[in-house]
Amino acid sequence: MSKERLKSSLRNIPDFPIKGVQFKDITSWFVNKEHLAELVDLVCDIYKERGITKVVGIESRGFILGGAIAVKLGAGFVPARKSGKLPSETISESYNKEYGTDTIEIHKDAIVESDIVLVHDDLLATGGTMLAVYRLVNRFSPKKVYLNFLIELTELKGRELFPPKTEVDTILSL
Amino acid sequence: MSKERLKSSLRNIPDFPIKGVQFKDITSWFVNKEHLAELVDLVCDIYKERGITKVVGIESRGFILGGAIAVKLGAGFVPARKSGKLPSETISESYNKEYGTDTIEIHKDAIVESDIVLVHDDLLATGGTMLAVYRLVNRFSPKKVYLNFLIELTELKGRELFPPKTEVDTILSL
Repeated sequence: MSKERLKSSLRNIPDFPIKGVQFKDITSWFVNKEHLAELVDLVCDIYKERGITKVVGIESRGFILGGAIAVKLGAGFVPARKSGKLPSETISESYNKEYGTDTIEIHKDAIVESDIVLVHDDLLATGGTMLAVYRLVNRFSPKKVYLNFLIELTELKGRELFPPKTEVDTILSL
Repeated sequence: MSKERLKSSLRNIPDFPIKGVQFKDITSWFVNKEHLAELVDLVCDIYKERGITKVVGIESRGFILGGAIAVKLGAGFVPARKSGKLPSETISESYNKEYGTDTIEIHKDAIVESDIVLVHDDLLATGGTMLAVYRLVNRFSPKKVYLNFLIELTELKGRELFPPKTEVDTILSL
């Protein structure tokens, strides 16, 4: 019911950022105070009994709810950022994009082995960025890693990139 | 008391991003669940009686607490982003940086005249980015605009860029 409402209020932008892409504009959710609060609640309802100690948000749309989810779950927040943005010592993973390579980084002291980590981003499309972050987070050897997206574009099968037992949860599948 | 604790736990990074700059690494706050929750509380305590209806967060560090502040104040969240990142129709402001010009954008339908707006960013240094966002937000003619930073570097006098009656609040002045 409430997910149907979210679905119908999600703005679609044709041909952004390039021709042929139907872009899901999540800012059309965030601008609405009820939808914003509801999204945070829906995500936190999934993880509230899982002992999450760190929420990793992926730059930059994953920062918007990532901080709010961390506060609500009583966890710390860790940004995963593009190369050169984090000021202290980092570890990094590179991954292929349509044109060339990107690198994503996390501060070296941001996750410890006793952490239970929730990685959050807005959208699961082909999954390349999240796979890099998933690998990066696993290099810290935390107790457990959960992956969360607001929206999953099921057609693109990004979920299949992850090992079979990976716990991937999404709020809305399109 | 609690601000002293925040101050002493803020990591300083010398010579980042360029030689001579003492960079204040706010991720050293966010990774700590107590500090993260406390920061959101400290900000929301300032604004809780002011009827905030929209929180504008400035890309990308201003997104991290911006979303959490919006949820806690019962407001909507509006991202102010660099040129070309927002998918729908925008209005924009350009401003001078040390080398060249930058442009910041907000979706055209994200703020209405009945809104009371809180603009949030992590750091007030020279103030150029916030001044551009302040001007941009004012073009929507909202009822009122408040400006909030976690940290103000008082020496750089960024506050003096804004008209005298502008309400600028910061959690920590350094």
